[in-house]
Order: sequence, then C-alpha cells, then structure tokens
Amino acid sequence: MKRIGVLTSGGDAPGMNAAIRAVVRTGIAKGWEVWGVKGGYQGLITGKILPLGARDVGGIMQRGGTILGSARAPEFKTEEGQLKALRTLNEQGIEALVVIGGNGSQTGSGALHKLGFPVVGVASTIDNDLYGSETTIGVDTALNISLEAIDRLKTTASSLQRAFMLEVMGRDCGYLALMSAIAGGAEACVIPEVETDPEDLAQRLRAAYQKGKEHAIVVVAEGAKYNAETLGQYFSSHRERLGFDLRVTILGHVQRGGAPTAYDRILASRLAAGATEALARGEFGVLVGLNQSKITTTPIEVVNSSKKEIDMELFELAKILD
Amino acid sequence: MKRIGVLTSGGDAPGMNAAIRAVVRTGIAKGWEVWGVKGGYQGLITGKILPLGARDVGGIMQRGGTILGSARAPEFKTEEGQLKALRTLNEQGIEALVVIGGNGSQTGSGALHKLGFPVVGVASTIDNDLYGSETTIGVDTALNISLEAIDRLKTTASSLQRAFMLEVMGRDCGYLALMSAIAGGAEACVIPEVETDPEDLAQRLRAAYQKGKEHAIVVVAEGAKYNAETLGQYFSSHRERLGFDLRVTILGHVQRGGAPTAYDRILASRLAAGATEALARGEFGVLVGLNQSKITTTPIEVVNSSKKEIDMELFELAKILD
Amino acid sequence: MKRIGVLTSGGDAPGMNAAIRAVVRTGIAKGWEVWGVKGGYQGLITGKILPLGARDVGGIMQRGGTILGSARAPEFKTEEGQLKALRTLNEQGIEALVVIGGNGSQTGSGALHKLGFPVVGVASTIDNDLYGSETTIGVDTALNISLEAIDRLKTTASSLQRAFMLEVMGRDCGYLALMSAIAGGAEACVIPEVETDPEDLAQRLRAAYQKGKEHAIVVVAEGAKYNAETLGQYFSSHRERLGFDLRVTILGHVQRGGAPTAYDRILASRLAAGATEALARGEFGVLVGLNQSKITTTPIEVVNSSKKEIDMELFELAKILD
Amino acid sequence: MKRIGVLTSGGDAPGMNAAIRAVVRTGIAKGWEVWGVKGGYQGLITGKILPLGARDVGGIMQRGGTILGSARAPEFKTEEGQLKALRTLNEQGIEALVVIGGNGSQTGSGALHKLGFPVVGVASTIDNDLYGSETTIGVDTALNISLEAIDRLKTTASSLQRAFMLEVMGRDCGYLALMSAIAGGAEACVIPEVETDPEDLAQRLRAAYQKGKEHAIVVVAEGAKYNAETLGQYFSSHRERLGFDLRVTILGHVQRGGAPTAYDRILASRLAAGATEALARGEFGVLVGLNQSKITTTPIEVVNSSKKEIDMELFELAKILD
Repeated sequence: MKRIGVLTSGGDAPGMNAAIRAVVRTGIAKGWEVWGVKGGYQGLITGKILPLGARDVGGIMQRGGTILGSARAPEFKTEEGQLKALRTLNEQGIEALVVIGGNGSQTGSGALHKLGFPVVGVASTIDNDLYGSETTIGVDTALNISLEAIDRLKTTASSLQRAFMLEVMGRDCGYLALMSAIAGGAEACVIPEVETDPEDLAQRLRAAYQKGKEHAIVVVAEGAKYNAETLGQYFSSHRERLGFDLRVTILGHVQRGGAPTAYDRILASRLAAGATEALARGEFGVLVGLNQSKITTTPIEVVNSSKKEIDMELFELAKILD
Repeated sequence: MKRIGVLTSGGDAPGMNAAIRAVVRTGIAKGWEVWGVKGGYQGLITGKILPLGARDVGGIMQRGGTILGSARAPEFKTEEGQLKALRTLNEQGIEALVVIGGNGSQTGSGALHKLGFPVVGVASTIDNDLYGSETTIGVDTALNISLEAIDRLKTTASSLQRAFMLEVMGRDCGYLALMSAIAGGAEACVIPEVETDPEDLAQRLRAAYQKGKEHAIVVVAEGAKYNAETLGQYFSSHRERLGFDLRVTILGHVQRGGAPTAYDRILASRLAAGATEALARGEFGVLVGLNQSKITTTPIEVVNSSKKEIDMELFELAKILD
Repeated sequence: MKRIGVLTSGGDAPGMNAAIRAVVRTGIAKGWEVWGVKGGYQGLITGKILPLGARDVGGIMQRGGTILGSARAPEFKTEEGQLKALRTLNEQGIEALVVIGGNGSQTGSGALHKLGFPVVGVASTIDNDLYGSETTIGVDTALNISLEAIDRLKTTASSLQRAFMLEVMGRDCGYLALMSAIAGGAEACVIPEVETDPEDLAQRLRAAYQKGKEHAIVVVAEGAKYNAETLGQYFSSHRERLGFDLRVTILGHVQRGGAPTAYDRILASRLAAGATEALARGEFGVLVGLNQSKITTTPIEVVNSSKKEIDMELFELAKILD
Repeated sequence: MKRIGVLTSGGDAPGMNAAIRAVVRTGIAKGWEVWGVKGGYQGLITGKILPLGARDVGGIMQRGGTILGSARAPEFKTEEGQLKALRTLNEQGIEALVVIGGNGSQTGSGALHKLGFPVVGVASTIDNDLYGSETTIGVDTALNISLEAIDRLKTTASSLQRAFMLEVMGRDCGYLALMSAIAGGAEACVIPEVETDPEDLAQRLRAAYQKGKEHAIVVVAEGAKYNAETLGQYFSSHRERLGFDLRVTILGHVQRGGAPTAYDRILASRLAAGATEALARGEFGVLVGLNQSKITTTPIEVVNSSKKEIDMELFELAKILD
C-alpha cells in the first residue's frame, strides 16, 4: 500500500479531528501517504481530495467538528455516484479508504466495499446508534454537554418549585437521554425505546411535587414519540394538576460542538490507529469499534444490517436512583 | 442598629449567594446580627426568618441560585400583605432590610420604604433591565453561558452550511442577546428594542450564504416580537430562499444556573458591602449599584420609575464587526 | 439483611458522592437501612455513624469530594483499631459494609473481611492504580482536568516558542500522565513505569524546536523519578541547548476537585449498585469493578496482592501520534 | 489614511484575537486596508507583514493567544532597530499602527510615537498592571481560570483538613491574586504590594485550623516576596504548628490560555474599535482604555511614566469577607 484516503461523513461528532489526525500519523508511520477527502462522499464524487502531512493535522485535536467537512451526498446513493467516487479514488491512486462516521456513512462504506474497494470504517456518531461498537466517537462529549445543562437547571430556582424539560439529541436512539438522566439524576426520562404516557409522566411529577421535591428534571430524547414540544403543549393545558411550573430547554446542535473530552480523543485515536492496523493486515470491509475494552472489527454488512439495542437494565437503574 | 435582615426575591441570579454572604459577613463585622428571610417576600409574610452566622454562609459563593430561596408573592402586592411583612420584621426586631433582586424585588422594597421601613436594594438580575446599575449581579454569568453555546454551535458542521438560531433570556430587554451576539460574533441579533422584519433577516442570511459563509448564527432575545419559535416557523416555509438549513436552540433556564463568574462574585461582594455601608450611614430607600466603576446609590423611587436603555452604539458595532 | 453501612476512605475522588447516593438508594430499594460512616475508618473507630435517607443524598452527585469525608486512620492499621471498628459496627447493628476507595481503603476492607465482617469494596481512586477494575471512579474527571490544562497551555504564546512542563497526579502510577499526553497531544511524557533520561528528553525537545514546532508540552507524573521540579532544575542549567524557554505548571489537588464527569457519575452509580447486588446475593470480601464493560467482582485478597500494569501499547501509540 | 498596521506584542492575553478582528473590520469599514505584523516588533524589523481581509479574521475570536504571534525583540530597544521598523512601515505604505499589548509593548509604541510615527495602543495584559485602563484585555479570563482552580481545591478533601497554596500570575502586580482571593473566598492572599510575614500567615492558618475550618486556601502572587516555593519551604519546616497539611498548585501559563470570556471579547472589540476611531480623528500617541465605563485615550508618555495602583479597599474587603 502506498496511499490511503480518509473522509468524515454524516453529522459531525467531537473527536472526529482526533481520528483524522491518528489516521494520518499512524498511516505515515507505516510508510503510506494519507490523503484527505473534503466534504464526505460528495467530495469523493467531485474529486476534492488533497495530501495531508503530519503537521497538517497538528493543533486540530482539541476542536469539535471535522476539518475535512461533511456534506449531504444524495448522488452517492446512486450507483452512478458511487462509480464516480471510485473513479476519483483510482485516478488519485488511493488504494484504501478510512470512513469516519455513523450509520449513513457506513452504509456508504458498505457500498464501496461491495464494489470491491478496500474500505475500513471508524465508529463515530454522537447518537451511539451504530452497531459494532459499544460506544462511538462523540458520545462522551455530547453526554457531558447535556449533563452540564442538567446541573445548571438544578441549581436554579429550586425554591420556585419548577420542572424543567430538557430535549437532547440522539435521533431515534434514547442512549444520550437515558445516560444524561442517570448522570444528572433526572426525575424522568422519555426515550423512543419505551412507550411513555404523558398522563403517567404528569402523575410522577405531581407525586414528586407533593413529596416536596424542589425541582423535577425530565430529559426527553428528540426522537421520542412525545418530544419537548408536544409534551410541553400537553402539560401547559394541565398545569394546575402538575404542581410544578414547567420550562423547556432545547439543546440542539450545542451538544455536537464542544471540545472533545479526553475519552473521545483517546477513543478516536485508538479506533483510527486500529483502522490503519486493519488496512495494514489486509482486513477490509469492516468497522473498527470498541467492544469489551478491546479494539475490534465487525464486517460492515453485519453493522449495516443490525440494530444496536439500548441497555434496559440502565433504564431500570435510572428509576431506582431517582 | 442591632439586627438586619436580608432576602432574595424574583428570578434567581448567579452571584446572589455571594451577595448574601457579603451582607452577612460585613454586617457581622459592623457588630450587627444578620437574619435571612426564606422564600422572598412570601417568607416575610409567613415569618420564615432565621439568624445567619458567618459560617452559615461558607461554601455557598460558588453555587448558582440562592440559598435563601425565592417565591412568587402575590399577597405582598396588597397593602395587607405588606403590613403582615412589616409585622414580621418588627416582631423579630429586624431594624433594616437588604433586598437582593431585580425590578419586581425593588418594587417591593419601594413599598416597604414608603411604609417607613429602612430598606436598601442590591441590583441583581440576569436580564440587566434594572435602572440604577450599569450591570447587575448575574448578567456576566448568563452572558458567558450563552457565549459558550454560540462557540459550540460555531464549531459544528460548518461544512454542512447550517444556520443556527439561539434564543436567550432577558425578558423584555435585549441586553443579553446583543452582548452574546457581539462576544460570539453572531451574524444577526433580534432584540425587542429594534424592529426586525423577518424578510430582512432572511435576506441577510441568504446574502451570507451566497458569500460562502459556512454558518450563520442568529441570536434571538426571548422577548423579541419574533422569537425563536415564530422565526423558526417563518423560515421553515421559506427554506429554499434561505440557503442555510436552520436549527434552533432554546437555552432557557440553563442560563441562570451556572457557577457565578469571577465578575459576578466580586460585583456581588462589593454591592452587598455597599449595602451594609449605606445602612451604617443611615442611607435608606436606595438601590446600591455599580456606575462608572463606583459603588453608587440611587433612590428606589427613581429606580422604579425609570427605564434602562440599551446602548445602540453597541448594536451598530455588532453590525460592523460581523 | 436489615442495615448496611457505607464509607469513603483515602484520597477523595470525583464521583464518590454519586457512589454514596447509589449505595443508599439501591440499598433502600432492597428494603435495607443504609448508614453512613463519617471520616473513613477513623469514623468507624470513634463511632461517627448516622442513618442516611434517600433525600439525604439528593443534590450531592454533581459535587466533587465526599460528603462522608475521609481522614487518616493510623489506628485502624492496628488490630486494636480494627476491633474497635468492629465493635462500632456490631453495636449499631450494621450487618455489612461498602467501602468506596482505592488501595489503602481496600487494604482496610481486606482486614475487616479477614476478621469475618461482610465487606464489599467499590473501586475509587483518581490514580487508576487499583487492581480489579480497568478504570476507577474519579479517573475520567481527573484526566479531563489535566487535558484542559494542556489545551490551555497549547493556545498560549506558541509564537514565543515555549516548552511547558505539566506535572499531574497519579502517585506511583503513570496512567493519568500517559492518558493526558495522548488526549492532549503532548510532545513527551515522563512516567514512573518507563526510565527517562533527562538528556534524551532535552534532545527530543531540541529536535522539536529545530523542526520549527511552536511549542512543546511535556507531561510529567508526580511519581516519576524525575518530576517537574527536578526536571525543571536540570533544564534550567541547559537552557541554551533546549531551544525552548521552559515554564512549569503543577496542577496538584486541582485535579481532584472537579464536578464529576458523566462517565464518573455513571461508573459510580453502576459500581455502587453492583455492590448492593453483591451484598444481596451474599457475596462478600470482593471488590466491585468494571472489566470488559461488565460489572465484576474480584476477591479483595487478590486485589490487595496484585499490581495493575499500565498498557505499554498506549505508550507506544503516544509516541507515534506526537 | 489608506493603510494601517496592527501588531500584538509581549505576553499573549486571551482576547487579543478579538482585538485584531475588530481593528481589521472597523478599519475596513472606514475604507482602509489593514495589514497584520507577525511576531510583534521583531516582525516590524524583519518585514513580516501581510494584508488582512475581513474573512481572514473570522473564527479567531474564541481562541486564546494571538494569530499574529509575539516574540522577544531586544533589537527594537535600540534606535537602530526602531529605524528598521520605521523603514518597514514606510516601505509598505503603512500610515499608522495599532499596538495591542501591555507595558513593554506600549514602551515600544511610545518609541515609535517619539520618532513621529502615528501610533495608537490598545490596553492588553493579563497582569492588569498597565496605567491608563482600569482593566485590560485578558484579565477577566485569567481571573476566571484561577477562580476555577480555587473552586476545585475547595471541593477536595475538606475533611482531610488541608491547606492549599495557589500561585497565580501577575508579575509584580497583585491584582489577579487579590481578585481571585475575593472571588474564591480564600483565607489569605499574598501580594507584592503588601508586606507579608510568613509567621503571621502561619498563625492565621493555625487560627483557622483551630476554629475548625475544613480547609484554607492561600492565593500567592508569583511576584510576591515570598512566592509559593519559598512559602512552601517555610511551612514544611513548621508543619506541626500549621495544623493543616499543605499542598501547592502552580498554575503558570494555564492562566493565559483559555478561550476568552465574554467580558474580554467585548472589551477587546470596544477598545479596538476605539483605536480605529482615534486614528480616524487623527489622535495619535495615545493608549485606548476603559475608564469609568467609557472608552478613553491617555497619552502614551503618561501611560509609560505612571504606575497603576491596586485598590487597597478591596484588600481590606477580602479580609472582612473571609
């Protein structure tokens, strides 16, 4: 192998830059050139690709986002688009590609793999909904940002007996919401994986209020059937029965944007080093992930056809700890 | 003077605890007892009041919120309620009262003053809408929290060319929104003090998009005619013309809840020390504030009948700096 | 079982409060009373022990330190002291004890276990030098604090071509220093586990200087043969050969004192829940830890007679990534 | 005026980038070109100067340090060096220069002014020892970083009854140490402006210990006669008399390196806008500063021949509040 490529795709995740840096530096240490693709799969199609030296990735690790950028690439979903991407790779002499991203990105890497191109994926998404890695790059940072919001909500006006609803990201996955709720000691947690009856929730808040609790925090996953907006509307028409006065915070993309935590930077460095290791030993078409404290590889087709389940024991623990 | 009281009222503000601590410790240093009223004016009515020693206020300065609590006190708006409060003060031998809070709180202290009770106000509200102090306790912390959100939004997905709308607190005052916009380098700022046409805003975003800007941040004051919700709806029906994909963050009470910054703790300490100084020299019925770097006093009736204006030069500076 | 006790011992670690909270609440959920011992083993000897209700541990999770306190307990190292402790436990009707702490603490729990008292340990130390748990409560927070220091050092005065030496905690273990160095992208790392020749280090810095690097960060473990003080003295007499101007930061206990990260709070909650589970199934004399993503138990005597090794692959990775 | 220059000099301060950005953008808004000098006065001598567009200073405000760099410039202290600098300015058609920095930097701008070159200074140093501006760019950020360290020290191991000594920056000025002590509620503060007898300090700590205080924080300015190292040695030989066990933290350059606070970014933006205003109205040879809430100008020769005094009332307040 002489030259490999690296791209980031899909939603950005804090730690992606640490992964890019580690792909570049471990790749160079193996004697390869490493080229970076700008703007995800779209950049592959349009040929936006440039060599990256060891110093080009200096000073990027502490920044959120991705220096390579990302973009929507509807064209890459077509075979024509994929063939264009392949042409770029061949024309530039790229012999293998590292794809840093989540579900959509690994669907893309699966497509390239099927077309016979050597690809290795690196598990990266703040949603933690990617099969093949217990945790993924960006999750820890996103979690700490929502935790910080919970801590702040808890210090404010407890004597005003307020309930706060905090909507966090995670798409169809309740992981971030559930873990935020445990770490923050929230009174309730609404996630897509568990049916929530708003009336039950109202009763729990009422009960907390009557027990004399000074505040109640409800963490809501953006992908839950009832999200912050719909729950807020439901409760506003039941305020007198709720006890607490209810206020809503919607974190949105704030969760994506932090400087990566130590955990995410180390995870990113290790997974990316694992990716160049896999390439070096000729293991292609796999996702590099962290499982049971080990760097592992899982076939991309398994990754793309499996669904990661949330740990319901933690959901039960959250209820006991509240 | 032998015994004074201190209460916090209205919305809590980071730094209130530093103010309580300084009232207690500078009061004790003057040879007085200091008693704390729990739950604002409502606590005065119901007689929730207890002596505070120097050690009782140890370890509280770094916490947001207020250890004395706050509460709605509709009863205190009636003369009957005010007389009840006066009775509590007299029964407990409280000879003067320090009221830490914003507009509503100082309306209350004005009422007690009119009834002849010696009162001194301490300027404290995150909204910075209180006449008589250029800046108030809690503003700096709230500002830094919204700035942190802007910084995070900026690092995320710039290559996805997104626009982010951030709604910050401030009630009818645009100070927090404007200052956040300047400190964060936002592309636009929507405040109650300035009429904003959503179509103009859309054009500015479009222009930024066409100039190739990677992201656009719009800071919106919660009290603006068009807030994040209404603007979001307006833009969602005009998406194709906006260029950017728009996402919304609503900070809500997260802004209130941080550990107070150095600025807020020092301001709180100095204003509170100024309040006991005013009491010591027999100057009652005034608000202690910071003006032109000096601790000043302003008659409560002036405070309550005047409106603080926003500095429009800073609004113009924000436009040039963007 | 009717009544259990819980204590924290040794150096405090961020997350200990989350562990106390989870012991109390999962214990109560099992129908037990939970009593807290104040001041570690010394409190056992002197009988400082009190019942903890579910609400007594509300609002403590976000704080560093330990609400139960800790203290030196030389007396507990004697058999007489241990018998006194046993007497307290028996007199108060405590049937089992959860000991939250690191090496010294688990030596103590081993002693109680040998005397026949039912004990379960929870792995907690920022040093990560405790056998039986891949990571321990407090490590993640301490790591993020030293990382934040590195990030800050990196942004300052790079054009002044300075080298910064950062001394971090960890006693005889280089884990925190090594992980900080990887996460922060330090140029060098000095740990007790690896012999470092100061002249080699000086050469590496010189080489970095001559390559035109704007700054160099050296992370030094406090327990290394050459620590920040001795290295600083060595370099000050070799300044002209070093290239960089050298400045020293000694973090000290700042590293212990942060609000616990999400990781530490969740780890603490899970390990503590694992401890009451172990008690419930009658498994005593073990340390509850996290290994390969599972909550595990390891016999205390194995814990106390084994040494945790540092992962030298990560030391090599650090060198490649720099 | 057609073309102005801007440079940063001396120790970097968080907020310098916001100042550079505002010089560039307000300068461009006045119809000028703005050129940036790299590496301070040394860059003027060697001709390292390049045009800066509005977009070149995008995305820099949130970063500590200075994108223009700084460097030692012994040559600029000679008349020959100054004439070389002047030649560069003339050759490049620079008609006026904005100098962002502290005492050393403004000595340099004074020299250029004496040679007849139009210069305006912007007050920037974390030490707050520059006459002509009540506070300077970088102070607020540095203060918040040392405050964070104090908060963390306070949460750790209070039950172990420890005293912590924290050495903060500030060169010969005790401002940062004093303000950190007030904001953090330190038990004592050692600054260059006030003679401290280590035995007095030991007695105060002993007294605090005997009163049962759980911890004692001593903030020491690096420029004090007794700094952390010498005090640490003094106390280590008097440990039994001190009561507390003493631990030392030396923050060093960590204090310089944070993302600038809202206060520093707004101050930097306003002072820099004030600098281009001064140039526009032909007011040269002055330092732009903040005094009594107003943007002011002070003749450089007054700045360079005056000494800023510390507010001793605040030193007294610190003692009362402790």
